[in-house]
Amino acid sequence: MKKPNIVILGAGYGGIMTTVKLQKSMGVNDANITLVNKNDYHYQTTWLHENAAGTLHHDRTRIPIKDVVNMSKINFVQDTVTAIKPDEKKVKLENSELSYDILVIGLGFEAATFGIPGLIENAFTIGDINSSRLIREHIEYNFAMYHNEKEKNQARLNIVVGGGGFTGIEFVGELANRIPELCKEYDIDKSLVRIINVEGAPTVLPGFDPQLVEYAMNSLESRGVEFVTGAMLKDCKPDSIVYEKDGKQVEVPTLTTVWAAGVRANSIVEKSGIETNRGKVEVRNDMRAPGYDDIFVIGDCALIMNPENGRPYPPTAQIAIQESYTVAHNVKALAEGHELEGFEAKILGTVASLGHTDAIGVVLNDRKLFGWKATVMKKVIDNRYLLKLGGLGLLLKKGKFNIFY
Amino acid sequence: MKKPNIVILGAGYGGIMTTVKLQKSMGVNDANITLVNKNDYHYQTTWLHENAAGTLHHDRTRIPIKDVVNMSKINFVQDTVTAIKPDEKKVKLENSELSYDILVIGLGFEAATFGIPGLIENAFTIGDINSSRLIREHIEYNFAMYHNEKEKNQARLNIVVGGGGFTGIEFVGELANRIPELCKEYDIDKSLVRIINVEGAPTVLPGFDPQLVEYAMNSLESRGVEFVTGAMLKDCKPDSIVYEKDGKQVEVPTLTTVWAAGVRANSIVEKSGIETNRGKVEVRNDMRAPGYDDIFVIGDCALIMNPENGRPYPPTAQIAIQESYTVAHNVKALAEGHELEGFEAKILGTVASLGHTDAIGVVLNDRKLFGWKATVMKKVIDNRYLLKLGGLGLLLKKGKFNIFY
Repeated sequence: MKKPNIVILGAGYGGIMTTVKLQKSMGVNDANITLVNKNDYHYQTTWLHENAAGTLHHDRTRIPIKDVVNMSKINFVQDTVTAIKPDEKKVKLENSELSYDILVIGLGFEAATFGIPGLIENAFTIGDINSSRLIREHIEYNFAMYHNEKEKNQARLNIVVGGGGFTGIEFVGELANRIPELCKEYDIDKSLVRIINVEGAPTVLPGFDPQLVEYAMNSLESRGVEFVTGAMLKDCKPDSIVYEKDGKQVEVPTLTTVWAAGVRANSIVEKSGIETNRGKVEVRNDMRAPGYDDIFVIGDCALIMNPENGRPYPPTAQIAIQESYTVAHNVKALAEGHELEGFEAKILGTVASLGHTDAIGVVLNDRKLFGWKATVMKKVIDNRYLLKLGGLGLLLKKGKFNIFY
Repeated sequence: MKKPNIVILGAGYGGIMTTVKLQKSMGVNDANITLVNKNDYHYQTTWLHENAAGTLHHDRTRIPIKDVVNMSKINFVQDTVTAIKPDEKKVKLENSELSYDILVIGLGFEAATFGIPGLIENAFTIGDINSSRLIREHIEYNFAMYHNEKEKNQARLNIVVGGGGFTGIEFVGELANRIPELCKEYDIDKSLVRIINVEGAPTVLPGFDPQLVEYAMNSLESRGVEFVTGAMLKDCKPDSIVYEKDGKQVEVPTLTTVWAAGVRANSIVEKSGIETNRGKVEVRNDMRAPGYDDIFVIGDCALIMNPENGRPYPPTAQIAIQESYTVAHNVKALAEGHELEGFEAKILGTVASLGHTDAIGVVLNDRKLFGWKATVMKKVIDNRYLLKLGGLGLLLKKGKFNIFY
């Protein structure tokens, strides 16, 4: 094989870790490696809810790509992918076109709105740095407006979060911490503000241990979060949402609906012609797409079944990072004509934060954690990733060390 | 005279200083003194443009009334004045009604829009704490939105300030300091942002020495402020403004128009039936309203001619504070049957800031100041007021001491 063009699309958890691994294992004489990303920074998707609530500045969440990628070894292209042409071995970008010999697709997720009317137009999503800091500003703006109108508009103080999954719960947890500060800033009576979490399932955090779920709900309710479970969002209007529960429709006035109830793979993947299953590529054991020996798929665009329960692994940072080890190994093996290895997930644990001061989690062997121990565990997980991605320097710069806050 | 009811309307510069003076000179057995104010705080109107630009937090600008007024000596009513009935000696509030024997009207200003279409609906004003922090949030919100739209909307980054008087110039000065920070916060190219000052007169800061005006314009232009002088605002639309200059109409797309080109006295005064001149009460030499021996008018509601040039004194904090000495003296004198004194203005100087780092001013005997000396002078003036109002404690809490910032 001639010196191959390796193109990596997306600098999310999977893409950036694959790049960092490859820049260590392959030299400039072994391959031309190109990383394509919309922004000149990587961000920790799992921290975005804190940026959206305003409890953590977004500059803590994002990492300039040049800080972790060696620009003399990797060709970095800041551009947006518009289409993948697997049969032509080409990728179309907004401003140019790339040819590849080996492609890694790590284009992440987009919001899935399940056809609920008005959601695309009127709801916010915690999707990236831009959309998250907009939520922070939007909430502040409405609080600032409140005392500037003769008729007080309660819709400015009601915040509805659609979805009681990971993101939804972690977001309302941060909001519960943030609201008292905002009320002080804008002279608003705290008791007027409502944080309402609407979830379709009979319980929030489906899949989590019921004891931990109860702990989480108690913790959040004691800080003013209201839960409406078993309720389906029916309509998202500019100044209200409508949900249905027990056959009855309820309308809640709000100017702030945050949709955190579903993600799907980037739709570019489905449009590429690569075989997909509900929008994702069910990859082979070596992380390659079916039918294309030169295309790897990683992170939220990839679907891998958990052999233990026959259901897909959830689209988490943990899985994406683990996949990057296999993908980086296999890209090099493919380029050099060696044998590819299979991917095996190891779920080390799952921790959901409930604001800065509380959390719940399950670690190895189903051990349950809650309270400050879980808070510490969450930070340990985040810090380990930074260490893997950029070494001690990055950890010190962006890590979370104040374990009691 | 029986123990008189003295009612002071408004806790602006004039009202609060009159109250503070009276609580020292009159005891609880001499008079019932009532202060009425919409908020439970006084604020420094001359600092609001900094809150609006986001360069100073509004909590620095406002002072809780209980921190300077002795609540065991003064009856404080937090309410909004809706009408004054001078012939019935009554004041109507939103939630109650007060009778007075002696009244002090210090109800301040409201924006004068000169009938320009759309201004009331679409422009912001630097009127109080609420409206000022809303401007800060509005600008931030538009910067946050900028990268969340496919079609970049330049109107989000254009800030138009109507009026090149004191407030307008001081505001664009602060904006010039603030914009680089905001651009960093929201990843916006600084060169895209426009700050446009539109003034009807042939020059900004009319009445100021031409040499100082030129200094000010150069200082601000070098920091990116654009001036359009000799231009009349014709229309303020939700997403643009139209001005006319040299017979031609120009439309500037903007979502942020701040109207700083005119104030008038609170319209409650005109509606009260007291004789007014362009909305203000041309007070007698002892600060009493014509025709009413029991009503004093102070601050922006009062009109006093400068005998030197036959024109009214400008509505400044300096004049209002000086008036409060005469009003406080005369209220006591009237209650006790002594002779009233006449008011005499002493203009000690005028300083206009051009952001944190620059200023221009004229002090005693027409001495011109600019640069850091004027900056220091401005802070000295502000600090002197705090000392007068609340003593050393207040000065230390709210004063401006960092003279080189």
